[in-house]
Amino acid sequence: MIRAVLKYRILSRAAIGDLTGFSRAKVTSVLAHLLDTGILQETEVGESTGGRRPRLLTFNGAFGYVAGVDLGATSVDVALADFSGTVIGHQARSLDVRDGPEPVLKEIIVLLNTLLQANQVTPEQLFGVGMGVPGPVEFDTGLLTAPPIMPGWDQYPIQRTLRKAFPRAQVVVDNDVNMMALGELWAGQGMGVDNFIYVKIGTGIGCGIVAGGRLYRGSTGCAGDIGHICVDASGMTCHCGNVGCLEAMAGGRRIAQRACDAAQNGSSPLLRRWMERDGSLSAAHIGGASAHGDATANQIITESGTMIGEVLASLVNFYNPSLILIGGGVSKIGDRLLTTIRRTVLKRSLPLSTRHLRMDVSAIGDRAGVMGALSVAVETVLNVPE
Amino acid sequence: MIRAVLKYRILSRAAIGDLTGFSRAKVTSVLAHLLDTGILQETEVGESTGGRRPRLLTFNGAFGYVAGVDLGATSVDVALADFSGTVIGHQARSLDVRDGPEPVLKEIIVLLNTLLQANQVTPEQLFGVGMGVPGPVEFDTGLLTAPPIMPGWDQYPIQRTLRKAFPRAQVVVDNDVNMMALGELWAGQGMGVDNFIYVKIGTGIGCGIVAGGRLYRGSTGCAGDIGHICVDASGMTCHCGNVGCLEAMAGGRRIAQRACDAAQNGSSPLLRRWMERDGSLSAAHIGGASAHGDATANQIITESGTMIGEVLASLVNFYNPSLILIGGGVSKIGDRLLTTIRRTVLKRSLPLSTRHLRMDVSAIGDRAGVMGALSVAVETVLNVPE
Repeated sequence: MIRAVLKYRILSRAAIGDLTGFSRAKVTSVLAHLLDTGILQETEVGESTGGRRPRLLTFNGAFGYVAGVDLGATSVDVALADFSGTVIGHQARSLDVRDGPEPVLKEIIVLLNTLLQANQVTPEQLFGVGMGVPGPVEFDTGLLTAPPIMPGWDQYPIQRTLRKAFPRAQVVVDNDVNMMALGELWAGQGMGVDNFIYVKIGTGIGCGIVAGGRLYRGSTGCAGDIGHICVDASGMTCHCGNVGCLEAMAGGRRIAQRACDAAQNGSSPLLRRWMERDGSLSAAHIGGASAHGDATANQIITESGTMIGEVLASLVNFYNPSLILIGGGVSKIGDRLLTTIRRTVLKRSLPLSTRHLRMDVSAIGDRAGVMGALSVAVETVLNVPE
Repeated sequence: MIRAVLKYRILSRAAIGDLTGFSRAKVTSVLAHLLDTGILQETEVGESTGGRRPRLLTFNGAFGYVAGVDLGATSVDVALADFSGTVIGHQARSLDVRDGPEPVLKEIIVLLNTLLQANQVTPEQLFGVGMGVPGPVEFDTGLLTAPPIMPGWDQYPIQRTLRKAFPRAQVVVDNDVNMMALGELWAGQGMGVDNFIYVKIGTGIGCGIVAGGRLYRGSTGCAGDIGHICVDASGMTCHCGNVGCLEAMAGGRRIAQRACDAAQNGSSPLLRRWMERDGSLSAAHIGGASAHGDATANQIITESGTMIGEVLASLVNFYNPSLILIGGGVSKIGDRLLTTIRRTVLKRSLPLSTRHLRMDVSAIGDRAGVMGALSVAVETVLNVPE
């Protein structure tokens, strides 16, 4: 019912009945609840169709707000929005998730309070917080489960900590890649797309899955963990204990390691100069070297893109999406990566699967995570009994 | 509404209103349509709650019937059921799908008419036919698209041909593996399971995907085509043109080929004797030899199971199902195959994905396809405007 009002902005009781298919009695009882809580309000008078002029219902914009938090390994993005999803404030800063949950969450609460104050919103007006974290989350409990890059966060009660600071807020925690897929679905190229995959290529590699216009989390909430699909049975050992995982072979850390190797073994004089200049090398250096035509950098990108493309080709055969969106820090190292991925997918998937398949770089980029977190917060708060 | 009546067998109008949430006017208008077509009927009188004794609605069992057809490469199964899905007749016979659509469909129509007559059902009482075929189907049109093992069937109007014979029947065509997954969902181990994968290991290898309790067909209807996932970049060339596809490396045809090789190169004297006795060897011979402790047969099964298990491990990381069901002719060659698949999946998937994962052989086995075809027919016929 709220969704109907959100969509059409302003509606009569009769229109709500028609749109929802609810009986008049049900419309009346649900509306009474929503008017009572203040989410909806009765406002102007609509056009009469003969009898008494009907009162119209509209959404109470000033009723409340939601926050989105996108926690990365070394940074955090927070945003404040009203219930229609309009962002009214945004802030980002760097921090280290390895400092552990207490100082990091304290910092996030300070950031959120600053945003609230700057926008004259009281903590009591914050009704929902969505938070994406860089690790596996058991969605039902909102608890991180043995996150590899988040020491101290295993089973830490994030929801309880945030609720202590914002007592009226419902808190939803999910992994960062799911939040990014939701952000694309809500405000990015995924809008209106039924079945798509959002692939994040960063230090790690993972994906978020949208099925029938909704996020698909799998039966224990860990769907999309493609970073640990084996691409080379005689490859590097991964931090998960297995050998040749995609993430270990083609993730950001591996690309940076290969850059260091190329600098040290002399195969790339350019990378060697940059290493001497900057002290260390990252995936971004490989992107820069490739832009300068460095053959070794090009080879590393092509090999990484081929491995990622082979995994995506398997998923295309299995899942038959109409769109693959690619984001994450490493996706920015140049067109060669996407070109290689695209070429490999087209070569290795069945024609019937790729005939209508688009593969694009995310346009909302770094904002996908925080937009997804906001969307989850809105959906959760508005999911009152209908 | 029909679903509500089917589930509770007998209902009052008021109960229908409460169960569907429809307004009284909507209940009345939809009911009028269903009573008019004869799908529902008004019967006994229920218990009064004070006023006039309410008339009750029930399902008209004799109203109509549906048929399911499971077409394989060398056989066909047909079944007749009433709208509640109770099978009242079943027949199977061998035929060759390579004879082309006209003689094969003619044969199927004869079989269906025989079943109808044997059960005193007229062709006009047949309201739906679901049919599974061993090739890729564009679901919206019901047309086969370049099916590799069905020469002459490409774009052939199966639906039109069957509707000519059974003018009142709605006809739904889908690929055989999707039908099997639906059969498991409707009448097999998949009942009540939200997210599972049904894997058919036969001459080809494919899977059907259930997401949120419904069949997931993908954006162009070809989800689940895992037979063409690459498992060995330096492997055999597949009929699809690519190299090292799972189907080419571990499908029934490849296993039979490896059996012949083992017979000819002397590595298995047992298989050589059987080849001399039977003229040729199939995957079933490998199963038999394995049961006799033949080392070469065991090795072939282990290698095939490992390749299948590696692909399934990737899919488990991506899709996080709670159940994998395994069926198809080759799945019957002995426990060693399933054991190897299970061990490989557990080794290569993340613990969070496999903690609650079951992997089982289909119990309804060869009946899965025809049961799924029946379920699609029932769902299609009952999907009148609600």
